Amino acid sequence: MSLVENTAAVEAPNTFVADEAPFLNAIVQQIRANDSYGTYRNWSNELLLKPYILSKKQRREIPVEGDVDPITKGRILAFYRAVAARIEEETGQLSQVTIDLSHEGFGWALIFSGRLILVSKTLRDVQRFGFDSLEKLNAEGEKLVAKGIDLAKRFPEVCDI
Amino acid sequence: MSLVENTAAVEAPNTFVADEAPFLNAIVQQIRANDSYGTYRNWSNELLLKPYILSKKQRREIPVEGDVDPITKGRILAFYRAVAARIEEETGQLSQVTIDLSHEGFGWALIFSGRLILVSKTLRDVQRFGFDSLEKLNAEGEKLVAKGIDLAKRFPEVCDI
Repeated sequence: MSLVENTAAVEAPNTFVADEAPFLNAIVQQIRANDSYGTYRNWSNELLLKPYILSKKQRREIPVEGDVDPITKGRILAFYRAVAARIEEETGQLSQVTIDLSHEGFGWALIFSGRLILVSKTLRDVQRFGFDSLEKLNAEGEKLVAKGIDLAKRFPEVCDI
Repeated sequence: MSLVENTAAVEAPNTFVADEAPFLNAIVQQIRANDSYGTYRNWSNELLLKPYILSKKQRREIPVEGDVDPITKGRILAFYRAVAARIEEETGQLSQVTIDLSHEGFGWALIFSGRLILVSKTLRDVQRFGFDSLEKLNAEGEKLVAKGIDLAKRFPEVCDI
């Protein structure tokens, strides 16, 4: 199943079908929900997700010495909030997202419900946060979602503390 | 039991007995462990802990509009690392501390082991982070330690994931 339709034209944007890429859809919802000033109102979903797509070469070119800029931080937060939203959709468990980042781009992303950590990721060189393609982005997100759902089902009593 | 001996002299520092105040001792150890340049080598334990002690009046006088300064952040981190160290001492469970703070002084402090959150605190107005006295500081810390130990014992399988 291909979520992305690559057209022949070089400049044509990738597109995705929301039902087949629930995680991409969830990120788009996060971005639009926080768009208080309507900046992105006329942007396509694909354009909103474009900053998440970086080739290996593009990633390597981003320096990791400097501080993490607020836009990159916002992108990471939207990613993990989308994971949390998808887990909530599937389990009904409300969860919290915390991101603890040092200025150097190292840290932790946690999604938790009650006393249970549903998603736990160490972050490294987050200045380079990105994915090879929309498919990869969807797959990575859904992998975290699946593991979170599994944990929420295994330890419901820890979620409900 | 009084951990603090108030002497008659106004300027005399409070003192504490390490065995009777294990949490104060744990904070002091955190501060000294991070003192790579030996800045605090000749400081008494009481002097190291002094910034943690703020009266209600002193707290009210600290503005909460501005950013949280790095020294206050370091103080909060040492507090929660001391809680983690005390829990480890009592249970043998290694744990991680994460602090997710917005610039406005709101956020979360979490201590977790495996997938279990041992300590979960929402933070508010952390610019004013402080305690009425050394006894209060010790008691607050030990309260978090006790709850963390209790959780680690109730859900060991979640710690070991």
